[in-house]
Order: sequence, then structure tokens, then C-alpha cells
Amino acid sequence: MQLAMIGLGRMGGNIVLRLQRHGHSCVVYDHSEAAMERLAKEGAIPVKTLDDLAPALEASPKIVWVMLPAGKITEETIQSLAGKLNAGDIVIDGGNSFYKDDIRRSKFLAESGIHYVDVGTSGGVWGLERGYCLMIGGSKEVVDHLDPIFKTLAPGRGEIPATPGWEAKGDRRAEEGYIHAGPVGAGHFVKMIHNGIEYGLMQAYAEGFDILRNKSSDGLPQDERYDLDLAQIAEVWRRGSVVSSWLLDLSAAALVKSGELSQFSGRVDDSGEGRWTIAAAIEEAVSAEVLTAALFARFRSRVDHTFGEKLLSAMRFGFGGHVEGAIVPESGIVRS
Amino acid sequence: MQLAMIGLGRMGGNIVLRLQRHGHSCVVYDHSEAAMERLAKEGAIPVKTLDDLAPALEASPKIVWVMLPAGKITEETIQSLAGKLNAGDIVIDGGNSFYKDDIRRSKFLAESGIHYVDVGTSGGVWGLERGYCLMIGGSKEVVDHLDPIFKTLAPGRGEIPATPGWEAKGDRRAEEGYIHAGPVGAGHFVKMIHNGIEYGLMQAYAEGFDILRNKSSDGLPQDERYDLDLAQIAEVWRRGSVVSSWLLDLSAAALVKSGELSQFSGRVDDSGEGRWTIAAAIEEAVSAEVLTAALFARFRSRVDHTFGEKLLSAMRFGFGGHVEGAIVPESGIVRS
Amino acid sequence: MQLAMIGLGRMGGNIVLRLQRHGHSCVVYDHSEAAMERLAKEGAIPVKTLDDLAPALEASPKIVWVMLPAGKITEETIQSLAGKLNAGDIVIDGGNSFYKDDIRRSKFLAESGIHYVDVGTSGGVWGLERGYCLMIGGSKEVVDHLDPIFKTLAPGRGEIPATPGWEAKGDRRAEEGYIHAGPVGAGHFVKMIHNGIEYGLMQAYAEGFDILRNKSSDGLPQDERYDLDLAQIAEVWRRGSVVSSWLLDLSAAALVKSGELSQFSGRVDDSGEGRWTIAAAIEEAVSAEVLTAALFARFRSRVDHTFGEKLLSAMRFGFGGHVEGAIVPESGIVRS
Amino acid sequence: MQLAMIGLGRMGGNIVLRLQRHGHSCVVYDHSEAAMERLAKEGAIPVKTLDDLAPALEASPKIVWVMLPAGKITEETIQSLAGKLNAGDIVIDGGNSFYKDDIRRSKFLAESGIHYVDVGTSGGVWGLERGYCLMIGGSKEVVDHLDPIFKTLAPGRGEIPATPGWEAKGDRRAEEGYIHAGPVGAGHFVKMIHNGIEYGLMQAYAEGFDILRNKSSDGLPQDERYDLDLAQIAEVWRRGSVVSSWLLDLSAAALVKSGELSQFSGRVDDSGEGRWTIAAAIEEAVSAEVLTAALFARFRSRVDHTFGEKLLSAMRFGFGGHVEGAIVPESGIVRS
Repeated sequence: MQLAMIGLGRMGGNIVLRLQRHGHSCVVYDHSEAAMERLAKEGAIPVKTLDDLAPALEASPKIVWVMLPAGKITEETIQSLAGKLNAGDIVIDGGNSFYKDDIRRSKFLAESGIHYVDVGTSGGVWGLERGYCLMIGGSKEVVDHLDPIFKTLAPGRGEIPATPGWEAKGDRRAEEGYIHAGPVGAGHFVKMIHNGIEYGLMQAYAEGFDILRNKSSDGLPQDERYDLDLAQIAEVWRRGSVVSSWLLDLSAAALVKSGELSQFSGRVDDSGEGRWTIAAAIEEAVSAEVLTAALFARFRSRVDHTFGEKLLSAMRFGFGGHVEGAIVPESGIVRS
Repeated sequence: MQLAMIGLGRMGGNIVLRLQRHGHSCVVYDHSEAAMERLAKEGAIPVKTLDDLAPALEASPKIVWVMLPAGKITEETIQSLAGKLNAGDIVIDGGNSFYKDDIRRSKFLAESGIHYVDVGTSGGVWGLERGYCLMIGGSKEVVDHLDPIFKTLAPGRGEIPATPGWEAKGDRRAEEGYIHAGPVGAGHFVKMIHNGIEYGLMQAYAEGFDILRNKSSDGLPQDERYDLDLAQIAEVWRRGSVVSSWLLDLSAAALVKSGELSQFSGRVDDSGEGRWTIAAAIEEAVSAEVLTAALFARFRSRVDHTFGEKLLSAMRFGFGGHVEGAIVPESGIVRS
Repeated sequence: MQLAMIGLGRMGGNIVLRLQRHGHSCVVYDHSEAAMERLAKEGAIPVKTLDDLAPALEASPKIVWVMLPAGKITEETIQSLAGKLNAGDIVIDGGNSFYKDDIRRSKFLAESGIHYVDVGTSGGVWGLERGYCLMIGGSKEVVDHLDPIFKTLAPGRGEIPATPGWEAKGDRRAEEGYIHAGPVGAGHFVKMIHNGIEYGLMQAYAEGFDILRNKSSDGLPQDERYDLDLAQIAEVWRRGSVVSSWLLDLSAAALVKSGELSQFSGRVDDSGEGRWTIAAAIEEAVSAEVLTAALFARFRSRVDHTFGEKLLSAMRFGFGGHVEGAIVPESGIVRS
Repeated sequence: MQLAMIGLGRMGGNIVLRLQRHGHSCVVYDHSEAAMERLAKEGAIPVKTLDDLAPALEASPKIVWVMLPAGKITEETIQSLAGKLNAGDIVIDGGNSFYKDDIRRSKFLAESGIHYVDVGTSGGVWGLERGYCLMIGGSKEVVDHLDPIFKTLAPGRGEIPATPGWEAKGDRRAEEGYIHAGPVGAGHFVKMIHNGIEYGLMQAYAEGFDILRNKSSDGLPQDERYDLDLAQIAEVWRRGSVVSSWLLDLSAAALVKSGELSQFSGRVDDSGEGRWTIAAAIEEAVSAEVLTAALFARFRSRVDHTFGEKLLSAMRFGFGGHVEGAIVPESGIVRS
């Protein structure tokens, strides 16, 4: 099929490459000329302005995939497409948009008869080669029409063993790595929860390895101190243990390179999905302690000392005369 | 090699089977005659009492693997072995003992010159076929002596892709699925943290799927409600997504069988390792929010209503006259 | 001063009473005739419709206090006031509105030259007698104009000891129990955080008393079991201990009435402020574990068993063959 | 009455002062001569060695109060008292000992017929003047015998309003600020939970004020930013609000002195009770999210960056090529 891609960063660029290599043809647009040139070499057709994009698409309906950072730039781009496309054309937002924005935008585009599809896309830098796991929201007809594109981008069955009982009951597409999750917004909603879970899984490993590493602390009794080899532990858990996963594979690879991980500062970013997941839990009145704790650990990692912690010290001083950090307490001092 | 196995439950029995099938020979003991008969058919030699166990072992040093529930029965069995074995013999605790018990027991057995090895064993009901992931604590000499047993029990390299950079730096054994983690206790310590992480990972998925499922709640705005197919979501995440793991494979298999999981009550057990992991974190002053929240979620799952929750209602009644559960508030009532 | 009160529930009604008793005069409106009659007896002037409200106010600027449940009814009422008041008049929202709604509404009313003030009001059923703690948002001029009302509603200095150093630096009003927190929205924002903290404090007591109560559990070693008298404990902590507070006073009163608190089901409601507090923390990237855990405990209290917990059991069954709730495990079974 | 005090730090010294001033007579011992001299001036009788202590006590039974830091020094001191006292004499541990140590020690002393009483003591630097809130464990006879001492140390009824319904049902002692909580260990157990709750309460305020303070962050929309005066907020909440408490009084006092609390580093200590509270919760299978989160926040406050956080960054780099801290992402980059 033919589609236009707006945004040729790591994700958008690789999606174009994967589509081109499997016989689809792409019109491409990005602020970066270098990004466009790279893809032109692979057969994609670059255009100079957003206005040139729609005319360059020959097939009908025209399909435009937007792959930009969630937020203002995605919003503006999609708004502007309303004036450049015709009834029956299709806009795909493949970025990490908030699903309520999808719902709102799809209503706006529907006024011009333009269809809207949201695609949550997982796969990161590995997607070009392994394929992308796709979670799709939109109407059945439109999603079915786009099937050849999704089928190409998804990883396919590969070597992954079938889930027992799947064949009898399940949808072929899930086994090939993409699903039609529901109406508009459902794709990004499912992807959002995916990322929320991702935070929780990552934090579980992080805490476990933290406890393993601090088992060599001076403060522990001598015969209960172990100087554990974390790379070996990660490696062995990859093999037949209950905690094996792709994230563990990545941890093992990082730990074998550097047991101290000293190239990382320890300040950890978060993106919208982790936050929106908690908002969704709260809207539904679902307790989500682990996913929230994982998000908060990232917040905390980026602050040297919180104001709240200073207030704790101030209270302790107030009721017990504890001066935090004092070194030689008077004989016989007993804490409050 | 030859060894004796005490405890022929799901784990001990299957370990014997795997050893017998790979050319080792086992003397076996259990309270259950049926369990012994089943293994006798595979060539194991059953004995009627614990006293008969050591005499039935011909090789020297004698090796006795204890595979019983952690706690009193393991303690008593190991204590009693001190009088039945000789200096140089080896006791292996392959159960889920607390690592501080290992340290204490090894000192006790050392008084008789008996060696002690602790083996954290992961693999569950799948171990017979796939092999067991083994985390071993003990002295280098003894662990090396036992290598043929561990090599047989471990899964081996199999189809799992090598970790980049492993070959140059790592220990062959980790790739085959077993490690010598450190001195006595280190094996069970690493297994304990493994299980702590397992709780955290499981809870991350549990919360994520809970939010997905409650997205169809009546309380949400109509156009933000989705009736999501959880089996499809679990299946697609197995393919190219960041959250793929063995636990997700198991979730997908469960959800394809029954989307409601109504065969499960929702009361979730916990075993010692999850609790000891938190104790270890606290001893080391390591923050472990996610692992703790996962444990507490299990505690909470087993109580209908906590006393603490009733106290919350009592306080709310005290300051605001809130009667929890009241249905028709008077016009114009504003909450505290 | 003269003001109109819309909404004569527990809070609105008592505020009118307190104002009338201290020489202010109130025009009152509510759907409930009974509520209006009760206040008419105290000298308030009831009106039959919202349209009659403004004409009944003689002073200029006219002051209308809205005291309705946060959400749709407050929104509609305030919207409708735009057409009934004149430039220079003042609308006060004293309910528990979301502060972003305040900001939006104040912009809407400003188009008609109407002023908007938000008042977070704490005090519950005790406010009539003890006075209300008020957190006020709005422009300096308007808040200053309303000072006589706020001064009357606030508790005043009373018996509460002065904070050392306050007199030299602080604002008189804070000591009398009301503050001008900042521009529009700031009053409700501060009240919102107040309630968020309230959840955290309550949950801290709830958990502590839960641990005290379960110290008599059969599962504990005999000589470590205590049958503690919770009413006595709450009472003694009121006297010279670090955890003394009004919430503890209320807990003591509840526990002396009924040590089992069996009149409460354990299902605990939550209102908007607890949820919005977490949203604010997330917007600011502030870790707020305790406040969030307190909210989630309430969510969890209202569900018999979560779907997530069933999924935990399903996974446990998948990897270990654990059937949750099974009673007589086979001899020698060792967990995962 | 007459008693001996071992340990004349802030707590022990002030307890002696309060006893002396109310007509009791104390024999005192400490490593610090200055501490002994100070109390000698108030009429206490100092002794040079532990051996001189018992002979200096004239009354029978002899009463020795140990007020030392929990742990080794308390353990050794109490052990040594077994050889210096006679059957019928009484040892009081008024420090912050772990209640299981109390149980063990009391059994040890019982072999010599010596009684053991544990007293959890709250009141900090304020106790001398306001009195101490006492939670007492031991046998009824012994605790009754010591009543004059406890009555003197406790705050008494004071100005604190009676709990409604108390008089009819409750024990007089609780209203005077001391309780006989149960058998040996119960006093320290109740004090331990008191401190666990204290951590939770403190963290609730800390988080709330953190959110208030960060409401001025640049990252927020202009009209949703407030520059709040935290001292005023703390002050107003002391007056008629649901969150009023002694800890809030202390916070208000600290904030009026310094709104930035810049004299505190933000590194917050913890002592045994907070940790043991979590251990008790886990033993009882009680979910205690808030108390645990409060403890973990203190752990986290003392570390610059955890190893776990570095592992998070390593995983993020592994799956998404995210380099934490990178400043200018390539155009169109979309996060995993």
C-alpha cells in the first residue's frame, strides 16, 4: 500500500524502512533533511512541505501516518491535516498520544469525514528488525482496510511458541503481533497500560538487584554478607526461572558490560504513559500500588533531597531534639 | 553420580526422575509409599526409614539432598542427618529455606565435618522437562564436586540466545542455567530475591490487567469505555513488546481459557521468600516499595474487610458524620 | 454583612446559622423547604427560586455563597449566576470544587465583571460550634472586603497555644483560623492537599491499630501474642505522645464505644480531593507514596476480590501448579 | 519511692529530675560524671560503679530502671543485673528495646526470681515539663507496685478534654497518661507501633507540604502556579481543621522560623521501631503500605542515587536507546 509518514525519528524512520523493504511505498516528511535523504535512498518519496504531502499520495483513500512526540506538535499537525485531506481519507496517530486526545481528535476529523486510527507501537530500536507490536484503535472497516500495513509492521509468528488453546479461540492477528483493540483511543489506551506495566516490571528488577548488591554492606553481620556477581545472577535467571523476560535479557546484557553501571547517573526519566496509567487507575478506582510506586521512584530519582524530607528532620528536631547527622550522641541518649 | 533424595513431592520427585533419566542413580525416601513406588519404577532405590538411607549409598562422600517444605520438617531432618553421616559427606538443602537457617545449620554440621550446600531451585512443574534454574551456595570444592548433578538438572543452553559479551567474560555455568552464587546461604538468598522480584512482576501485570478490565465500568463516560479482550492483549504483548516474559505467557494461556478467571477466588497465598525479601531490604536500608506492595496486596486479598478500614469509617463518622454506605444524601450536603 | 447562601445541607446550613448568630444576615435557597424553614426560624430570609435570590440582596456588591456538592450542580448554579448578578458582585464557591474549575469559572464570570472567590472549608459537623478553618483564593481587594464574614466563620484564637515566633512574622488571620492562600483556585488547592494529608494520617492510624489488633492472632507464637485494649491505647496516646491529634481523639471516642467497630462495614468512600491530590503530585513530579497508598486502600476496601488477584492465582497455577486454597498438600511439596 | 536509674542521657536524666521533684528518691549511674553531678545537685545519689548501685538502694524490693540505647549496651547491662539483684527485685527497661528481647530477658531474669517490666516512653525533650506517655508491660502485681512512679512520670489529665464515654468504661490510668498494656513485651510493642504510626503521620505531612511547595514550579501552566506561604498554611490547619495534631504544631513552628528549612540536609534517620513495625505487620500478614512507605522514604533520603535507578536507565537504554539526560533529541523521536 501507499502511505505518507510525518516524522522520521527513530520510530517513524524505521517504520518507513520496514514498509519499503516489504513492498509498500512511502511519501515522507520531516524537518530534518538528512532524515528524508536517508529514506529517499531506500525508495521513499520526500516532500518539502506538509502541503505537498497529500498531493503526492496517489492511492485513494489517502493514508497519513503521524509519528511525532505526543503533545503540541502532534496536535497541530493533525489539526492541519483536516484542511489537506478529503472525506474518506485516513489519519493514523502512531505516537504515544493520550487516548482522550484521540477521542477528541477523531470527532474533529469526523466533521470532515476523515477517519482516525490510533496505533500504540512497541518495539523501540529493535522494531526495524524484529517488527513492532501494534495495538490499534478505530472502526472495523478502516482497520481492516489498513491490514496489509499492520501485517507488515508486526513481527509475525516467528519462533515464539503458540499459546495453548489459542488457535481454537483467538484472532490470527494477535499471534502475528497486532490487535484491533477497540474503537478510537483503545489502541493508545492499551499501549499506555503496557507502558505502565513496563514501569512496574522494571522497578521490580531494580529493587531486587538493589537488595542483591547491598548484601555486601559493611553494616551487616560478617557471615551474612555476600559479594554477589549480578551479571551471573541475571544470566542464570534467564534460563528456566519464573522471572525470565526481555527486560531481564537487557539487564543481563548491561550487567555483563559493567557490573557497576557507572555510566548511568541514576536519574530516570518518565513519559506520559506512566502518569496517565495512574490517572486511569484512579478514574476507575482501581488500586495500583506497584505501578504508582514505580512512577514515584523515577520522580524521586531526579531530586537531590525533597522539601518533605527536610520537614521530617524539622519535626524530629522539634519533638526529640534530633539533629540529623549528629555524630557523637551523649551517653545514654534514648530516642523518643 | 549417586545421591539420596529425602522428600518426593512435586519438586523432589521430578528432580529424581530427571537425574535417573540422565544416568545418575538415586536412593529415595518419603512418607508416601506411592511416591516411592512411582520412582522405583524409574530405577530409584526406595528405603523404608531415614536410618536406611545412608547405608544404601555406596559412593563416598555420601550425598543427601533434602527437598522438604521450609521450616520445622527440614530443620529436624537435617539435624538428624548429623548422626547418620560421616565427616566429608554432603547435605544439600534444595528447598526454600531461609538463608540464615542455612548459615546456622552449616555451622552445626561442620562440627561433625559434614559439608552443607544450599540450592535455590526454580522451575516449578516445568522443571522435569525444561530443567531447573539453580542458585547454589557452599564452598568451592564441594560445589565443584557436585557439578555433574547440577549440570544435569539445569536446563542447558537450549534455544535461548546468548547475552552479547557473555562468552568473553562470563562463567559457562550461568549460560547452562546454574551458578555458584557464593558461600553457604548465598544460593537461597539469591533464590529468595528471585521470588521477591517474581511477586513484584506478577503484581505489575495484575494491576495492569485490572485497569484494562475495569475500563468497561459504568462509572466512566460512555465514549471512554472500552470492552477490551484481555486474552488478545496478553497474546499481542508476547510478540515484540517490552513486557514480554514467561509470566505473560502464562497469563495469556490462562486468559485464553477463561477471560473471567472465575475459577480463582482471588485469595492469594504467599510463602516465606516474599516476606524475607522485605526483611532483607529493611536490614540493608534499601527502599523496596514495589516488592513490598506486591506482598501486601496478597495479604489484603485474604481478608474480607480489615479492622483498619473500619477505623477509617469510624473517624469519618466522627469528623464529618459520614455514614459509609448511606445512599440518599440530603440536598446540598458538602463533604468535609 | 449580608449574603445569600445556595445549598443548605450540613455545611451550608450551619454556616448560615453561625453567620446569623453573629449579626450577619442571610438570604437562603435550597431545594428542601424543610432546610429553609429551619433557617428562617433563626432569622434567615428564604427565597423560592434562584431568580429571587439577587433581588433579595440589598447590599452592594451582592455576595452569593454557593455550598453545593462539587461537580455538575455547582457548575450549573455558578453558570446561571452570571445572568443574575451585576459587575462588581461576588460569587463564593465554598464547596469542594476542583481548583482548575475555579480558575475556569472565574475567567467566565470575569467577562461579566463578576468576582470569584474560592473557599476551602474544613470543620465538618463541628464547625457550627468550633468554627471553620478557611482557606481562601481570590484577589486581595475582594478577599479583604469579605473579611468580616470570614472572621466570623473562623474559630478564632481560642485556647490553642500560639506558635512560637508567629506574632513577629505571621499574619493575624492564620491564628484566627483563616488565610488568604493566593489567587483564584489557591483556596481549594490548599484544602485539597489538606484532605490528601487527612487520608494519609487516617491510614497511618488505621494500619497501626490493625497491627495492634492482629497481635492476638492464633498464628503467632503463644508468648508473643497480646490481647491489647485498643481503646486504652488510643486514650493514652492522646496524652503527651508524639501521635496525638484530633483524628486520634476521634479514634479514641469510637473505640471506647465499641472495641470491635462492628457497626462499620469496612467499605470506605473517597471524595474528589484525595484523587486530585495524587494528580497534583504527578503533575509536579513529586513522589507521594503515602497519600497514594491511603487512597488505594479505600479503593481496595470496596471490592471483594480484584480481577488482578485472580490473575495472580492464575499465574501461580501456571508455573507451580498452586491451586490457591488447597488444604492438604501432598507430602514433600516444595513451593515454586 | 526509691529507684536506681542507669543511663542519664536526655531521657534518663529528665526522668530522674521529674521523679526527684515529685518526692521520689533516685540513685543514679552513668559513664558521664557531668551527667551525674547535674542530678546530684537535684538530690539524686550518684554511684561510681554498677556494683555500687544495688547496695545503695534501701527499699525492698529494689527497683532498677535501665534507660540506655536499645541493643548491645542494654543487653549487657540487664544481663549483669542478674548477678547483682535478688529474688523479688525489679528491673525496668524504659528504653526502646525490641519486645522479643523483653520476652527473652524476662525469662532469663525469672530464673533468679527477678521481675522484669518494659516501659515504652514517649515525650522526648518535652517530657520533663509535660510528663511522659507510658506504655507498660509486665505482671499485674509488679506494675501495680510501681504505680506511684508511673503516676508521677505521666502527664496527668491536664487540660486535655475527656473522651466522651471514657469515665464509665475506661481505666483511670489511661486518662492520666499511662497504661498497663499487657504481659512482658506488650509495653514496648505498643510503643513500637506508636513510632510506626508516627513515621506514617510525618510522611503524610511531608508529602502534602512537598506538593504545596512545588506548586510554584516553572513546569506548570502559568495560571495554575501558586507561590504558597507554607507557614501560614500550617498555622491555619492548627485551628479547627481535621489534620490538626502535635506534629503539625511542630511543623508550623519550624516553618515560621524558616520557610525553606535550609538548615536541614534532607537526610533522615530511622530507628529500630519503624523497622520492627513492618516486621510485625508481615508476621501478622497485615498490609501496612503507609507505614512501610514512610520508612522507605527515609532510606531513600540517605542515598544519592540507588543502584536500582541505574539499572532502570540501563534497561531504558537497552530497549529504547534512551540515554538519560540527553538534551537535544533528534527531530521526531518518539519514545518506545
